[in-house]
Amino acid sequence: MKDIYIADLTNFNEGTLFDSFFLVLAKQQRTTKTNKPYLNLMLGDKTGQLEGRVWDPGDPRIAKDFEKGDVVKARGSASRFDDRMQMKIDQLRLAQPNEIDKTDLLPSTTCDVAELWRKLVSVVASFTNPDLKRLLTTLFDESELAAAFREAPAAKGLHHAWLGGLLEHVISLLELGDGVAAHYPLLDRDLLLTGLILHDIGKVRELRWESGFEYTLEGSLLGHIHIGSVLVERAMDKLPDFPPKLKTLVLHMILSHHGKLEFGSPKLPMIPEALALSFLDDLDAKMQAITSEFDKCIRDGKPADELTGKVWSLDQRQLLNTKRWLNEGKE
Amino acid sequence: MKDIYIADLTNFNEGTLFDSFFLVLAKQQRTTKTNKPYLNLMLGDKTGQLEGRVWDPGDPRIAKDFEKGDVVKARGSASRFDDRMQMKIDQLRLAQPNEIDKTDLLPSTTCDVAELWRKLVSVVASFTNPDLKRLLTTLFDESELAAAFREAPAAKGLHHAWLGGLLEHVISLLELGDGVAAHYPLLDRDLLLTGLILHDIGKVRELRWESGFEYTLEGSLLGHIHIGSVLVERAMDKLPDFPPKLKTLVLHMILSHHGKLEFGSPKLPMIPEALALSFLDDLDAKMQAITSEFDKCIRDGKPADELTGKVWSLDQRQLLNTKRWLNEGKE
Amino acid sequence: MKDIYIADLTNFNEGTLFDSFFLVLAKQQRTTKTNKPYLNLMLGDKTGQLEGRVWDPGDPRIAKDFEKGDVVKARGSASRFDDRMQMKIDQLRLAQPNEIDKTDLLPSTTCDVAELWRKLVSVVASFTNPDLKRLLTTLFDESELAAAFREAPAAKGLHHAWLGGLLEHVISLLELGDGVAAHYPLLDRDLLLTGLILHDIGKVRELRWESGFEYTLEGSLLGHIHIGSVLVERAMDKLPDFPPKLKTLVLHMILSHHGKLEFGSPKLPMIPEALALSFLDDLDAKMQAITSEFDKCIRDGKPADELTGKVWSLDQRQLLNTKRWLNEGKE
Amino acid sequence: MKDIYIADLTNFNEGTLFDSFFLVLAKQQRTTKTNKPYLNLMLGDKTGQLEGRVWDPGDPRIAKDFEKGDVVKARGSASRFDDRMQMKIDQLRLAQPNEIDKTDLLPSTTCDVAELWRKLVSVVASFTNPDLKRLLTTLFDESELAAAFREAPAAKGLHHAWLGGLLEHVISLLELGDGVAAHYPLLDRDLLLTGLILHDIGKVRELRWESGFEYTLEGSLLGHIHIGSVLVERAMDKLPDFPPKLKTLVLHMILSHHGKLEFGSPKLPMIPEALALSFLDDLDAKMQAITSEFDKCIRDGKPADELTGKVWSLDQRQLLNTKRWLNEGKE
Amino acid sequence: MKDIYIADLTNFNEGTLFDSFFLVLAKQQRTTKTNKPYLNLMLGDKTGQLEGRVWDPGDPRIAKDFEKGDVVKARGSASRFDDRMQMKIDQLRLAQPNEIDKTDLLPSTTCDVAELWRKLVSVVASFTNPDLKRLLTTLFDESELAAAFREAPAAKGLHHAWLGGLLEHVISLLELGDGVAAHYPLLDRDLLLTGLILHDIGKVRELRWESGFEYTLEGSLLGHIHIGSVLVERAMDKLPDFPPKLKTLVLHMILSHHGKLEFGSPKLPMIPEALALSFLDDLDAKMQAITSEFDKCIRDGKPADELTGKVWSLDQRQLLNTKRWLNEGKE
Amino acid sequence: MKDIYIADLTNFNEGTLFDSFFLVLAKQQRTTKTNKPYLNLMLGDKTGQLEGRVWDPGDPRIAKDFEKGDVVKARGSASRFDDRMQMKIDQLRLAQPNEIDKTDLLPSTTCDVAELWRKLVSVVASFTNPDLKRLLTTLFDESELAAAFREAPAAKGLHHAWLGGLLEHVISLLELGDGVAAHYPLLDRDLLLTGLILHDIGKVRELRWESGFEYTLEGSLLGHIHIGSVLVERAMDKLPDFPPKLKTLVLHMILSHHGKLEFGSPKLPMIPEALALSFLDDLDAKMQAITSEFDKCIRDGKPADELTGKVWSLDQRQLLNTKRWLNEGKE
Repeated sequence: MKDIYIADLTNFNEGTLFDSFFLVLAKQQRTTKTNKPYLNLMLGDKTGQLEGRVWDPGDPRIAKDFEKGDVVKARGSASRFDDRMQMKIDQLRLAQPNEIDKTDLLPSTTCDVAELWRKLVSVVASFTNPDLKRLLTTLFDESELAAAFREAPAAKGLHHAWLGGLLEHVISLLELGDGVAAHYPLLDRDLLLTGLILHDIGKVRELRWESGFEYTLEGSLLGHIHIGSVLVERAMDKLPDFPPKLKTLVLHMILSHHGKLEFGSPKLPMIPEALALSFLDDLDAKMQAITSEFDKCIRDGKPADELTGKVWSLDQRQLLNTKRWLNEGKE
Repeated sequence: MKDIYIADLTNFNEGTLFDSFFLVLAKQQRTTKTNKPYLNLMLGDKTGQLEGRVWDPGDPRIAKDFEKGDVVKARGSASRFDDRMQMKIDQLRLAQPNEIDKTDLLPSTTCDVAELWRKLVSVVASFTNPDLKRLLTTLFDESELAAAFREAPAAKGLHHAWLGGLLEHVISLLELGDGVAAHYPLLDRDLLLTGLILHDIGKVRELRWESGFEYTLEGSLLGHIHIGSVLVERAMDKLPDFPPKLKTLVLHMILSHHGKLEFGSPKLPMIPEALALSFLDDLDAKMQAITSEFDKCIRDGKPADELTGKVWSLDQRQLLNTKRWLNEGKE
Repeated sequence: MKDIYIADLTNFNEGTLFDSFFLVLAKQQRTTKTNKPYLNLMLGDKTGQLEGRVWDPGDPRIAKDFEKGDVVKARGSASRFDDRMQMKIDQLRLAQPNEIDKTDLLPSTTCDVAELWRKLVSVVASFTNPDLKRLLTTLFDESELAAAFREAPAAKGLHHAWLGGLLEHVISLLELGDGVAAHYPLLDRDLLLTGLILHDIGKVRELRWESGFEYTLEGSLLGHIHIGSVLVERAMDKLPDFPPKLKTLVLHMILSHHGKLEFGSPKLPMIPEALALSFLDDLDAKMQAITSEFDKCIRDGKPADELTGKVWSLDQRQLLNTKRWLNEGKE
Repeated sequence: MKDIYIADLTNFNEGTLFDSFFLVLAKQQRTTKTNKPYLNLMLGDKTGQLEGRVWDPGDPRIAKDFEKGDVVKARGSASRFDDRMQMKIDQLRLAQPNEIDKTDLLPSTTCDVAELWRKLVSVVASFTNPDLKRLLTTLFDESELAAAFREAPAAKGLHHAWLGGLLEHVISLLELGDGVAAHYPLLDRDLLLTGLILHDIGKVRELRWESGFEYTLEGSLLGHIHIGSVLVERAMDKLPDFPPKLKTLVLHMILSHHGKLEFGSPKLPMIPEALALSFLDDLDAKMQAITSEFDKCIRDGKPADELTGKVWSLDQRQLLNTKRWLNEGKE
Repeated sequence: MKDIYIADLTNFNEGTLFDSFFLVLAKQQRTTKTNKPYLNLMLGDKTGQLEGRVWDPGDPRIAKDFEKGDVVKARGSASRFDDRMQMKIDQLRLAQPNEIDKTDLLPSTTCDVAELWRKLVSVVASFTNPDLKRLLTTLFDESELAAAFREAPAAKGLHHAWLGGLLEHVISLLELGDGVAAHYPLLDRDLLLTGLILHDIGKVRELRWESGFEYTLEGSLLGHIHIGSVLVERAMDKLPDFPPKLKTLVLHMILSHHGKLEFGSPKLPMIPEALALSFLDDLDAKMQAITSEFDKCIRDGKPADELTGKVWSLDQRQLLNTKRWLNEGKE
Repeated sequence: MKDIYIADLTNFNEGTLFDSFFLVLAKQQRTTKTNKPYLNLMLGDKTGQLEGRVWDPGDPRIAKDFEKGDVVKARGSASRFDDRMQMKIDQLRLAQPNEIDKTDLLPSTTCDVAELWRKLVSVVASFTNPDLKRLLTTLFDESELAAAFREAPAAKGLHHAWLGGLLEHVISLLELGDGVAAHYPLLDRDLLLTGLILHDIGKVRELRWESGFEYTLEGSLLGHIHIGSVLVERAMDKLPDFPPKLKTLVLHMILSHHGKLEFGSPKLPMIPEALALSFLDDLDAKMQAITSEFDKCIRDGKPADELTGKVWSLDQRQLLNTKRWLNEGKE
């Protein structure tokens, strides 16, 4: 159990001794000007990143067998460098499996995952189309897939980039999608919601999230659109008498959900449900990115009448936090 | 009062005599091969267009004083040409003002305009922001503007291109927008709904709809974004103590609602409400265009497994009517 | 057996009587100006298309039960209309299955398909990678797939748009690819050739070629890149111990073979073999399109120093037939 | 009155004592490695920027109450860091209003503003169109607007980015425009010149230039095209009997002057005067940017046969100073 | 000598007999429905195009030996077809060389070519740079080149598409350029004017204008930028001691004058003179295209408040004739 | 003769004394914090770059007369700075001409240039077209041009950026091109190979390679496409009776070889040989760039399953070294 987080260090005085568990994000051998070897580490937990220096790697209190991706327990003191805090490490050992809680070490959703999962299950339960209900029930009965689906981030960095981000994104979409399906009579509700649930399922294998969020090699070469559509196609193949029309439509929604060829969808949306899906997916990703950016501005102490930094997923646009600006001076 | 519509003619035999009121969409002087002058007319009503021929323009039963844009009463017989029906016109006179019902002559919304208007009024009544409520109330108190707003089409041809289309589009957006505002805490509901109501208000002067739907010269040179933003800016100027911040935000939403510079918005959305507005506006326009295209395919007797024609506002994409295809064979 | 082809009609005098087998490409009910019904047919064979008119559809010598896509035997006379030849049809009946030779009725490759197939088999036999050899052997052992692969066109209209076109395109690529693989040491020959063989295999289900070349509905919604990659992935899944690395690489080549996202590849080439594949595929398609256009110009009697018409797959560019121009005046 | 400028420091020896007035462009609290707080300032005047360090912020000779945007008098010594000069500050106080001359502190036009203004007035006086003359005279009678128009930069950074830059740009355009209007009979001279004068008038509120050149929040959200067109529309509204046609044309020129939708013009030029305006505006901005870049190369001692740095407003192109290169070796 | 022009025919009655000289723009053999051969001709003169029919090509009064590109004398009568006038031709013979005046048969400049030429010569005479003066004098001393330069159109269809159009365009540019060179001190006047004179000189071989305006085969394959730059490079090579720097600069201006790579310039403007040249060239071409379109609208009787047709060289934009619209109702 | 190379330094201990010849790539005067002048040099040889410091430029053992581009002999000691090796220089003098071997100092091809040249000559000898053979023989008889052609890099940085790179690229293309010409009957082999040999010949004057690889000023302003086409056009002009058709075709291939206007080709490929040339040129450049990147990854010790860095000429794509990855674990 971790009780000191990287974000806490800002308030430490130089020289304060402390210990904690960290994820090793990078490990490099370096030499000082006087030609002595030292270790430079990048340590992470769910609140941020911290540089750590081991000035005497030969010290018996420093483990030799740890690598990038391992969780370690480090003891040392805070030291200031160039206005940032570093850690001077005196002792370091690998953590025991029972000491590790991954949600301490990587950013994760602030939502209750069990609650999100219940929402997902209840949406599926509400389906009137028995085949789509069967498909989703069967898929999520596979416990390994369901576990990954609950844990995966929704992206490597742009939006919902945290453990549980994929599920959080899907639940947000389902709430939006239910309203939209009710609004437009030409939309088949169950089909749209199926697409919203499954569109990014390939991310469970496109990304890995053991030590930071990175692409798998398979993910780089094949992409989550292919991985997801094959995963779902196989599940449908295994269901007896799954209607071929539904199969084509579900796959089409996964293939087309990026909405534009240049965003990596091999097909453009050609059914109303696919079009609605691509709009909602894009809107939700952008709204989440804006929310994160607004939170960051508040944390950084920016005044309410200053634009945010450039937001990557909005073409480097800068935004204004409307509510905060309107309320300014009222509190 | 019109009782025979252009769409009825498909079922007429050649030579059937009939009369009806029409809008004159075009009028041309032509000559036959044997050098005799005749009139070629394009007549319209809310169900379509019909070519009409006056072979003897000198006949005293043919009025001399009508022009493009006038409503006329014509009597004559159905005649077939190249598999299409034409009208051979024997008598023609200008309609009396009291004989004219514009909604017979141009396509109009199938919704009850009074009902749509009540919805609009009740949304405004639900606002908690007093300034935005004041703005909208005052604007729609101006009876001429309110009348135009109830009558205007939402576009010249792409989507909601019918009388009342603008209001119908706005009401659809308000229903969507209410859900979206409830879903995302960072959105200011009243501000978003204000943007949804006002974003296209400049269309009341960009377009004219006396004889078909066309751009005014002012509309061509200035565009509805400028016209609308000036119209709303003036209204805000007249309200005592209207908050300058709100003024900037409302104008920003009108200016940025096309979402992209290349679509004629001089500013990109820089507040969450403007981003949501541009998404919803685009989605609703496309859903309406798809609905119209699906209706057309059914009217044209296309089979359920055939793609639609190329839809202009979806980059010439062809679509599949999911619900119809899935239900095929079930009825 | 067909002995008169549409291309022969140019030399017929008006009124010449003849009969032949045709594919019915379209069938429409129409009415004359005097309100009498007649049939307008579009007939096709491998040499072109011909309009046919049945002025008396009630005649007992005219079959009632034929539809678009059927093969019929028609008897009638040549008639000229607007400088084109038409057929005035007096008798018409459905063809017997044993009377039909599809290669008479649709354009097909001028190569010997059996010979092309032998080349394909011998290339696979030359592989030193046992897994890739196993994959291809197994795939083409499936007789239905092999038959479709031998028969499919390579495209709906742009290049190799004829029966056997896919196989002809693949063999051309294999000859090119063998040279390129020998030239660049960084290329894995068997992997590259596997990609060249399989890249378009999804076309066997994206297209149908019973009555002209058209997209299947599945093809329109999913595309040959998805269809092909799933088809190949399943085949690899069934092979015991197929190496996962090879599986990823083969799929990557299929997914990326269009070379650009905007051409519908969900991934860009990220291995040398995929890059070479996308270059060779593009080059071969364009060279074939040019060859067809040059042939067309010769058939149309264009002089050697005149540019061709605008070639669609070369961005509407016009070309010059170098060899013909250089030889002009030498013969 | 300022007598020492930042550009003078290059010639100072280390340790030289001096004092001067500066604009505070940025102010940051920092800590040394030994954890002592110090102030890091960015100081500016019309000749450039200078880093200043206050190593003892508690010293009573150092004012506590100054902020970014203030003008201060600082006393200290030159010190070299990383080949650049810094200022070690020993004393610092806010400047008195009567000590401040803004043109010392921000870059300003090298032209005589009064002379530029006389030119503007005389061009307006030369108009034969009484309504346009009335419009411009009235606008510039508003003394606050006239003052801002004389002082505003033409841009934040790309071209004419200095006090008086807007007016300098406009006068340059008027001289060009007079020639062009005389050359093309289809151009209405007064209308073109009106457009040249007013096209960027919205910059007076889009930008602020108290402490460096920055966008106002209103400017970021609405843009100078909207701000300017509304400002001019209101002025026209107030003139009795201003011709509606002229009003539309003047507004169209402001709205379309960027010449392309992707540059933020909501309308493309649709009248000859608007087209000419967009060409001249673009040409003049680029010629000015080139002139500045050439001056910079000469100041930096670049040889005449070396290309300039990459010029932002010419898509990062590098240029050659033709005249200088041709004259090289001749002097 | 031609006294009847195609434009005159609109006022002829059907059956009116007349004769005149025409350029044969196209000649086709056709057959009537009753299988009789006839000739369909496209005839042209400087005022337009006219279809001509020879119903009895065997008649001894109809010459057999004429081809596309020949000038013929035709006699026959006016006949109306589909609201357009045609000519029914009874006699036709090749014109004698002494009967032909090419300026009657192709559209030509309305300016006095001799006068334009004098302006060109006097501009060159005003040069202070002896080398550039030498270059231009020598080039235009070559009488064949000078003759072609006086006769060439400036383009195939977009702007100045008439005999003498190139020279007319150049003179217009020189007048503009002289003003611009005087305005910007960084411009070398003689260099800019040299560029304006020579930028399109390759058109004398890219185009041919014997029978309509068409690309030569060399022009299609090499383009006027290459042809012109080689032509000028050779001329400079022949001048003793022509300064290499000037040579590079002059060639750079020709190569870069289209201003964008995608418009076929292999280099972007990298000197101020080249930048100014590309602006002026583009502006003058567009102003001329607008002038032509405005003239066409007046000829076609369009009202002053109607937009023009879509102008190709302005991206299909429609324009408003400002002066005409403002004067409407005043005359 | 050079015996110590920059790449060797990684293995040196700090303080090791050594001397060697270097090319001076940059030379700067700087001052220390204590205001003492020193020299900062960038030294290069074929294996890389090295920073050198002369702390006492006044020392008589340090030459005063060397500049950027000179070859010098430097003596000093290795010193480590920020994990990179530097050279502390004690003595430095200009190299004698007879001490300089340029291939030691700049990266050069690893192929045998004489062997490459023999291949080129034998390809030309194999031509059956006497005119093209004559053209190439004559061109390469010009010994200065032939020498430059053997020495030039193929590019400044993207691919084959080393001495002899142009020739190496051409030989690679000829081998590919021979196969492609044999494969497609519509290709004229000699014409294609002529294009492959000559397409980049302008690089001999666009680039200079005395001190690093840089653009000449002429190269920047005119480009190798223009320079090369003029060089070849002149050579053809000098050959008696060179066929004009061939001349146009050869020039067209040079002008169009970049394949796209936006890549600086003023013409798109309009003959089959030009199209094939642009494909092969692009493929070979990319394959070489990939090979270099793969080599770099191996040198840098990257694991086989890690993607390369972003490759500039493949739009910043990252690649996987297929062969290495497949062989991983097998060795």
